[in-house]
Amino acid sequence: MEADLYAPFRNDLLRAGLLVDEGVDGLYGRSSTYESVASAIVRLTTDTGSEDHATSYHFPPVVPRRLLVQTDYLKSFPDLTGSVHTFKGDDRLHAELLALVDSGADWSPVLQPADVVMRPAACHPLYPLCTGRLPEAGRRFEVHGWCFRHEPSLDPARMQAFRMHEFVYVGDPDGAVAHRDRWLERGTAMLEGLGLDVEVVVANDPFFGRVGKVLAANQLDEALKLEFVTPICSADFPTAITSVNCHRDHFGLTFDIRSADGEVAHSSCFAVGVDRTTLALLHTHGLDPERWPQAVRNRLWP
Amino acid sequence: MEADLYAPFRNDLLRAGLLVDEGVDGLYGRSSTYESVASAIVRLTTDTGSEDHATSYHFPPVVPRRLLVQTDYLKSFPDLTGSVHTFKGDDRLHAELLALVDSGADWSPVLQPADVVMRPAACHPLYPLCTGRLPEAGRRFEVHGWCFRHEPSLDPARMQAFRMHEFVYVGDPDGAVAHRDRWLERGTAMLEGLGLDVEVVVANDPFFGRVGKVLAANQLDEALKLEFVTPICSADFPTAITSVNCHRDHFGLTFDIRSADGEVAHSSCFAVGVDRTTLALLHTHGLDPERWPQAVRNRLWP
Repeated sequence: MEADLYAPFRNDLLRAGLLVDEGVDGLYGRSSTYESVASAIVRLTTDTGSEDHATSYHFPPVVPRRLLVQTDYLKSFPDLTGSVHTFKGDDRLHAELLALVDSGADWSPVLQPADVVMRPAACHPLYPLCTGRLPEAGRRFEVHGWCFRHEPSLDPARMQAFRMHEFVYVGDPDGAVAHRDRWLERGTAMLEGLGLDVEVVVANDPFFGRVGKVLAANQLDEALKLEFVTPICSADFPTAITSVNCHRDHFGLTFDIRSADGEVAHSSCFAVGVDRTTLALLHTHGLDPERWPQAVRNRLWP
Repeated sequence: MEADLYAPFRNDLLRAGLLVDEGVDGLYGRSSTYESVASAIVRLTTDTGSEDHATSYHFPPVVPRRLLVQTDYLKSFPDLTGSVHTFKGDDRLHAELLALVDSGADWSPVLQPADVVMRPAACHPLYPLCTGRLPEAGRRFEVHGWCFRHEPSLDPARMQAFRMHEFVYVGDPDGAVAHRDRWLERGTAMLEGLGLDVEVVVANDPFFGRVGKVLAANQLDEALKLEFVTPICSADFPTAITSVNCHRDHFGLTFDIRSADGEVAHSSCFAVGVDRTTLALLHTHGLDPERWPQAVRNRLWP
């Protein structure tokens, strides 16, 4: 069933050489044509947010291990996490490791956790930088780069490693809501300007397990996170390519961030799924960007 | 001793806001100024190799787990590897995981290996794509992106997560040597054009353990890999910022790659350390790229 739904577009992408199968579900190399679209989306997102005068940071694809606990990610999405382990032994343990490898056994028990884990969302490394008292206007950040979620799938839009581009606000509650609402407008204009048929829906994140069912129900009730969905592999099951999310005081409490008046800071963000938006464009306008509508090309490559 | 050597430049970079300390040795956020230099180096490297008419691929920061074994990386550099693990349990195991986290214990034994590991070198995912018979002229690739090596250090030039930009040849033995030698020339011209004081030395990779001592001695004897070194933190201990490496039939044998005449293929590569070259420029010309020599600026931002 899953394979049937995703196979046609996935095979189109592979045959056209836009994606290269690396032999693990959800892991692909990208061609230079694919990358030219992805880079253009990053540039367009930066331009769309230029009025924010945001501070731009680039973080690596791994983050400090403690962030996974502090952000509650390990509570809510344990099955999506990636914990990085390494070898810290001597010659003898190394011989054991290689013997396990040779016998085809699981060699991971010989390893020990490193100080880093895969970055689950682009904005996570920002919040520890904000600990303390914020200026009156709050702070605005732009951040983009590689994220990881362990969810092996045949859906080309559900990659294990993908790029996310975010504009983040940290400050007072009104500012956080205003940031989200402004980006709801800007995001709509940006995606519609690319000829994408988007609909805004309340997000429904895949919280883990029994407790997760309650968290998911709360998320729907409170409608703090909204997603822009568009058909990629199926008109019946459109894919979220971009989102706006009001975190309330979640990060403010965890990282002891205070707004100028001394209250616990609120935050919100706008997040573009760079790879998903690339795929949405390839689905909507065809596999050859040279033949896309001129208006779309002009926005991507002005 | 280590701290003394690296502290002055590291503190300069942090104070200037070019790097942001993430609280783990060798893990940094980068400012937009730093990134503008890194991006310029990537563009210049692409331009320098334009005559290669290479096929360009972009791979994620994680690669299939089996690559770590197939490339012998786990044999030679086990202590540098990053193996990605995730949670595959049910509600009950999740409760155990969270209890471990709450008690401050190591929660990693609850995890299981994922199908991916951190990418140790930019070119590794290329070789499985070459299995089979190559065309007469061999194949040329350009590849760049995030790599990971677990080597926590106070040396800002020894980052755990960093970018590498490579030009790779896969074909016959003569072609592999010619590729290396051509890039030895091009690399020298490119780095000297940036006003960097580079010296070419035989590489001395940190092979692991007792067996590693033999491998390291062989590497020195055979002089197959050469590095461009330049002072970053110390004139006495210059840093390798770029290298050329002849792999002989290492990848050809492992991935069953044959040149046009049916022999086991040879390969070689030119690899630019994007972050190390950025740091070398900041060390050589000062922390403000706006004030760098005009000739250097013209090459980076033509």
